[in-house]
Amino acid sequence: MRQDEAQGAGTIFADFVAGTLWADVAAHNHEAKRSILNFFATALGSAYDPAVSAALRTLLPFSGAATSAVIGRPERLDALGASFVNAVSANLLDFDDTHLDTIIHPAAPVAAPVLALAQTRGFSGQAVLTAFILGVEVECRIGNAVSPGHYARGWHITSTCGVFGAAAACAKLLELPADQISNAIGIAASQSAGIVENLPSAAKNVSVGNAARNGLFAALLAAEGYSASPRAIEGPLGWARAMGDVPDTARLTGGLGRTWEITKNTYKPYPAGIVFHAVIDACFNLRAKLNQRIDDIASITVQGSALLLARGDRPVRNERDARVSIHHCAACALLLGAAGVTEFADATVFRPDIVSLRQKVRAALDASLPDGAARVIIQLTSGETLSEIVMEAKGSLADPLSDRDIEAKLRDCARLGGAGWDMDRIIDDVWRLDTLADVSGLMRAHG
Amino acid sequence: MRQDEAQGAGTIFADFVAGTLWADVAAHNHEAKRSILNFFATALGSAYDPAVSAALRTLLPFSGAATSAVIGRPERLDALGASFVNAVSANLLDFDDTHLDTIIHPAAPVAAPVLALAQTRGFSGQAVLTAFILGVEVECRIGNAVSPGHYARGWHITSTCGVFGAAAACAKLLELPADQISNAIGIAASQSAGIVENLPSAAKNVSVGNAARNGLFAALLAAEGYSASPRAIEGPLGWARAMGDVPDTARLTGGLGRTWEITKNTYKPYPAGIVFHAVIDACFNLRAKLNQRIDDIASITVQGSALLLARGDRPVRNERDARVSIHHCAACALLLGAAGVTEFADATVFRPDIVSLRQKVRAALDASLPDGAARVIIQLTSGETLSEIVMEAKGSLADPLSDRDIEAKLRDCARLGGAGWDMDRIIDDVWRLDTLADVSGLMRAHG
Repeated sequence: MRQDEAQGAGTIFADFVAGTLWADVAAHNHEAKRSILNFFATALGSAYDPAVSAALRTLLPFSGAATSAVIGRPERLDALGASFVNAVSANLLDFDDTHLDTIIHPAAPVAAPVLALAQTRGFSGQAVLTAFILGVEVECRIGNAVSPGHYARGWHITSTCGVFGAAAACAKLLELPADQISNAIGIAASQSAGIVENLPSAAKNVSVGNAARNGLFAALLAAEGYSASPRAIEGPLGWARAMGDVPDTARLTGGLGRTWEITKNTYKPYPAGIVFHAVIDACFNLRAKLNQRIDDIASITVQGSALLLARGDRPVRNERDARVSIHHCAACALLLGAAGVTEFADATVFRPDIVSLRQKVRAALDASLPDGAARVIIQLTSGETLSEIVMEAKGSLADPLSDRDIEAKLRDCARLGGAGWDMDRIIDDVWRLDTLADVSGLMRAHG
Repeated sequence: MRQDEAQGAGTIFADFVAGTLWADVAAHNHEAKRSILNFFATALGSAYDPAVSAALRTLLPFSGAATSAVIGRPERLDALGASFVNAVSANLLDFDDTHLDTIIHPAAPVAAPVLALAQTRGFSGQAVLTAFILGVEVECRIGNAVSPGHYARGWHITSTCGVFGAAAACAKLLELPADQISNAIGIAASQSAGIVENLPSAAKNVSVGNAARNGLFAALLAAEGYSASPRAIEGPLGWARAMGDVPDTARLTGGLGRTWEITKNTYKPYPAGIVFHAVIDACFNLRAKLNQRIDDIASITVQGSALLLARGDRPVRNERDARVSIHHCAACALLLGAAGVTEFADATVFRPDIVSLRQKVRAALDASLPDGAARVIIQLTSGETLSEIVMEAKGSLADPLSDRDIEAKLRDCARLGGAGWDMDRIIDDVWRLDTLADVSGLMRAHG
């Protein structure tokens, strides 16, 4: 792989993407399958969210031949529209995968267009996996090169970097030559958008959906001869500088093909902000120690870093608050021994026993704890004290979800959405994706 | 109009857009018609450019019901697709209108979706003109608030600000209430993209087309209930800060409804970079003085600011170079007495007499001349010297094109594109747009 400094990053990425074969990525195909299974889990879970339904209503009149599935629903759209909607549903609750170095959710913008496109032409599972792994690679490397300043400045990095990954992946799936892959990546730079200010609103979904849709669009335009600067990413009037970043060249393209970002992907066990996962795990451990003495709890103290408190020490008025509440996470884990989709739904959020237990929780700073860790201390009315500390939460790279955990997550999510979709078949098809001659079956509602 | 500092700019713009009626903008409707006529001129001229044909090939399979015209061609697309393609063709050669304070080309991103949407529902000419004027207002005010740093940093301001104007205009045309207009503008902030690094390539067209398409998309999503931050533009993690700008609040929303950006719109007489227009005008004046003594020219010296030299002192290898060449502009104006679409086409660029005359041109700095001015000095073989200076080029605010000039420009452009479109009808319909009960007729290929 050439790494000539004089080459534009777009050219370097394109040569890499064009030259990488299934044999080069096969070692990582299981992690890619885990990412894709987790993508189906969250897309199914949000399939009937009002934001997904509204996007679908908006796009249905503007769909060409309806070739591609809307995951978890009976409707179909053209591949551009399906890319948009499936990326929206997969990412809607931020319950999708997380690349911890960048906080990119890698799969939604990449898997959505790859699968929607694959369904139109009956591509093989190996082609899909290769394209997906390469798309995640380009997406996360560009994110690495501009992190952490990029997100901190207000860019929604899943959207802004996702479009590059989608473009690279779709260009690979279309078997474009290297110069057209470079053009697709450069066209992505002219479509990269999405701001953090809009994250609490549905406008967030628009930039995520566009990342997926416009990445595919970039590849289709490149295939029709559209060109772009090979220095669109790092050139003097290019993407990074305009966005306020000075890209780290070594992290951008150094070691391509020797390290793989897909291996750093993680999957959340709980549909809550990732910093709350250690709180939940600590409370699960305490629940065993409590042995049903819930009514004897006098107070619950959750200790963590300034980040934990900044994100999660807040009143709970709705589901959205509950997903980022120290108090709610602790209460569910202690009282219910669970923190799945049901536990963050309104019916649980307003349960009197949960409300009551939430009121016993207080948050306290322990600056000695790293981000992502938590200590929970329960004071019982008897005077007894129980304490648990969790340094690496379940779902982190140190304690990843097992394959069975991800299957269970998919089945749990599917309680909310996915009516008419065969969960067993999705799970089976994803695990044997590398053997499928045509992935279209995976994208069909019925088995 | 409330201008409470505590309100978000999105809210202030939305209240203004929702509350503004035809009667409030009627005084400026003639300038809006001139902008729209100029929009048709450049869209027709580029209707068969390869970049337009490629965009059309890409989008045709992804079009819903083909409700809306592709200007200058027989094909139709859904309103989202037509918005994209018509914005691309109108802006392709940068021969469209220019808002000089920002160098935004206002009409392409706003008129394209307004007309495509209007055609789907038979909106009136007054509704179209009102929406267009308001869209240009929002687009150019946002541009004013971040200029000149925004463009200098690498943002293609027509694309990045155009999407806001398109969203506001389409939301107005759809008669959305103020809260939904605010949401449409906020959703636009999550779709704002486009970089200067890509300007020499077709990727530039993608961000311009997306500005039009995504502005309409934002309005449609807002109508379906999608929300956004009312501070998406100026909030702490919003559009302006992420883009690297500190928006000038007074220029953003101060004096809304009292000043009108549409009155500052200008139209290019020549399909060349705007800084070359004074060179062309000076050469037209010299041509009269020369009285056909072209063969007696020993040398031609073009003097201007550093900007003129930086942009235009270059070798000419193709049409694209010719449009930004001091040498070619001077040669055409002196030899042919014309600088229209024909004079920048390959057939003229490679004419031996033009090539020969270009070689006699040299550029020289005169730092005392402002940007946009030029002095041209001809040395004849006899020793005689002729000189002309132009401070305000034709097409500037000081020497605007007449209505007849814009009509002639449209007919000239239509020599390249627009086969099957009735130029007389377009011209007539645009001038009487405020009296049309339904603008759909304007958007039909045949009379």
